[in-house]
Amino acid sequence: MAERIGQSTVRLCQPVIIRAAAGVVGHKERKGPLGDYFDIAFRNDKLGQPTWEKAESTLQTVAVNTLLQKAVLQTRDIDVIFAGDLLNQCISSTFGLRELGIPLLGQYGACSTMAQTMAVGAVFVESGAANKAIAVTSSHFCSAERQFRLPMEYGGQRTPTAQWTVTGAGAALLERGQSGVKIQHITVGRINDYHIIDANNMGAAMAPAAADTLRRFLTDTHTTVFDYDLILTGDLGRIGSQLLHELLQKDGPDITPNHQDCGCLIFDTEQAEVHAGGSGCGCCASVFCSYILPKLQRKEWQNILFIATGALMSPTSSQQGESIPGIAHLLHIVS
Amino acid sequence: MAERIGQSTVRLCQPVIIRAAAGVVGHKERKGPLGDYFDIAFRNDKLGQPTWEKAESTLQTVAVNTLLQKAVLQTRDIDVIFAGDLLNQCISSTFGLRELGIPLLGQYGACSTMAQTMAVGAVFVESGAANKAIAVTSSHFCSAERQFRLPMEYGGQRTPTAQWTVTGAGAALLERGQSGVKIQHITVGRINDYHIIDANNMGAAMAPAAADTLRRFLTDTHTTVFDYDLILTGDLGRIGSQLLHELLQKDGPDITPNHQDCGCLIFDTEQAEVHAGGSGCGCCASVFCSYILPKLQRKEWQNILFIATGALMSPTSSQQGESIPGIAHLLHIVS
Repeated sequence: MAERIGQSTVRLCQPVIIRAAAGVVGHKERKGPLGDYFDIAFRNDKLGQPTWEKAESTLQTVAVNTLLQKAVLQTRDIDVIFAGDLLNQCISSTFGLRELGIPLLGQYGACSTMAQTMAVGAVFVESGAANKAIAVTSSHFCSAERQFRLPMEYGGQRTPTAQWTVTGAGAALLERGQSGVKIQHITVGRINDYHIIDANNMGAAMAPAAADTLRRFLTDTHTTVFDYDLILTGDLGRIGSQLLHELLQKDGPDITPNHQDCGCLIFDTEQAEVHAGGSGCGCCASVFCSYILPKLQRKEWQNILFIATGALMSPTSSQQGESIPGIAHLLHIVS
Repeated sequence: MAERIGQSTVRLCQPVIIRAAAGVVGHKERKGPLGDYFDIAFRNDKLGQPTWEKAESTLQTVAVNTLLQKAVLQTRDIDVIFAGDLLNQCISSTFGLRELGIPLLGQYGACSTMAQTMAVGAVFVESGAANKAIAVTSSHFCSAERQFRLPMEYGGQRTPTAQWTVTGAGAALLERGQSGVKIQHITVGRINDYHIIDANNMGAAMAPAAADTLRRFLTDTHTTVFDYDLILTGDLGRIGSQLLHELLQKDGPDITPNHQDCGCLIFDTEQAEVHAGGSGCGCCASVFCSYILPKLQRKEWQNILFIATGALMSPTSSQQGESIPGIAHLLHIVS
């Protein structure tokens, strides 16, 4: 049974472990500071496919197949897969997972999708609705850029607040188990709208949601940020991270000493055009699966909060004058 | 605890009830055979909004607020809302639910979304991860038409196999309870690809998925179609329903006597341009919430299968030569 704690947090009473995970990335991510950690790093971001969208689908296929290999499992061993992405109608999940034949529940949380798929998957596993579940998501710089911003061929200059959509995917296997890295608590995010309208400053759109979810979790669990080895946000990037620190300092915790952001970890500031850092569903998905989870498994960290953030918008909503609300889902993970 | 039955079915051991629901529709649906059943039927499909997308968002807002009124609840009483829609990046859910402040887990299942949101919500409620959850989805003829097919102003002629996207939304409240209409089993759908490429024949794209999920459920539960008062599909329409009957007759059950389809129920064949019937997330959502659930509550039906189907495609995937795979999620509901 799961148990509700305080206003918004769920404690998973039966232990759900992240048994294995796989992170897959493209060329620029391979050259970044975490390049050696990823399970697979492609040299060509087209992955031999005729379109960027099909390349992104392939990232999900490869991530899931790599995960199954690592866990020595077949597709028929998996009861349900939770998957989502940034493309219209989540087509990279549909076409990336089509051949696998695993029951699918599509998720949409924009860049918060990795935490969301793991959260929903963990509830299914904890309750017995699934014995083994996979959580997977992806993003691709080129498919995102042309869908959300400008055609690649246009070669537009990007603003300093812009982030670079990570070409990558991450897949994690959840099951019941006594030993291993466990998902202990979940806090589902609410929509936070600070009326940001600049689609080139997603960090600002998402930081308030991260602050809101973190505050709600800390209140519900009667803990402070110093009770955790690491507070890991998804893809706030440098500007969003700075804003998160400022928002939280207004009424309390200074998380600067133990905060890291996957968008800042994945690229070096020296790397061309990454500007404020990495973003996209594949950013925290690949970083969590290939870099963070192994450190938890080795007990370098034992008690972390993983807060993935998403900006809930479409080009249509922006063209119709809507702001860019954010959302953030939190997982408390222990090893 | 939930329990897995056979290969793919989940039995909810703690009773999850659909305590209340609300269906909201537009003008054409108001004039259809179920017009008098809907909780709210608007006379103008713009709902006083400047764009079709904002009108669709408003359908979700109205559906949830009507549901809360019927259940005599406030937004703060709801632990989590599961919501999704057909628009790119699910913006009708985002902007329709933004002001409510309820923790949100976005779902993407195309037109299967109502069954999906109820299935995921039921697992959350059953496990204790939520005490009260709402499942909601919507579609709007005009926002769907211009996103998936042609601009409204073009006035293109529609083929006889085409379906008419329902302007409507449905919201259902799930909670633990002993008496009432219960969700007893869930079968999560798999992607089924019969290589349909005609975006004007969604019924054909989705029928194989409905057949697959129904077969898997019947095998897992050792039951036959005659054990159920009603087999209710989402929006196969007339052509998809016929195909479903043919597919199932190949290896067994003739479901014709106790099969109904929300896409056939919502419009009269006499209504202009509906052709093969209604479609869209809002089709089975509004029909289930306003027409089916009250009949279950009055015990006119006591034991039904609700199978909502979705076509997993985007204009981009079709333009890139992909087929249109289908998916179908099943709920076994008893009263």
